[in-house]
Amino acid sequence: MTFDVTVNVSLKDAILDPAGQSTEKVLRNMGYAIKGVRIGKQIRFQITATHLEDAEENARQMAKKLLANPVMETYSITVRES
Amino acid sequence: MTFDVTVNVSLKDAILDPAGQSTEKVLRNMGYAIKGVRIGKQIRFQITATHLEDAEENARQMAKKLLANPVMETYSITVRES
Repeated sequence: MTFDVTVNVSLKDAILDPAGQSTEKVLRNMGYAIKGVRIGKQIRFQITATHLEDAEENARQMAKKLLANPVMETYSITVRES
Repeated sequence: MTFDVTVNVSLKDAILDPAGQSTEKVLRNMGYAIKGVRIGKQIRFQITATHLEDAEENARQMAKKLLANPVMETYSITVRES
């Protein structure tokens, strides 16, 4: 079976986000009442697995090993059947 | 009122994603049965607005004007009360 996986990777709260800060400054200058801009990554792919649980477990391994940097980033995973 | 906004920006299907392709190659070499890796951005922030609809409209404007490149990217917006 094929599953659609989305891995959202974001910087930990304690880590500075210069790109987010720049974006926030520009948007505020444009007149938008916003704060706390944080820019993360969203990685999407399809995976072949026998069960949803296997797909989730594989996605978790991939996030830990490659997609996220555990020192600076956190991740969340969403898996659904294609 | 304050709302939490998430803007997901992804490359259009017709646009090549070299970073996604490299990531896919590495993950396949690691033994994962995946395909179609696409890497996008996830921008999160808080916005002050009187209604959910206003927050959504502002987020849409920001995505169009600054956060996404309409030639190469598509975006989706999620807004919920903080």
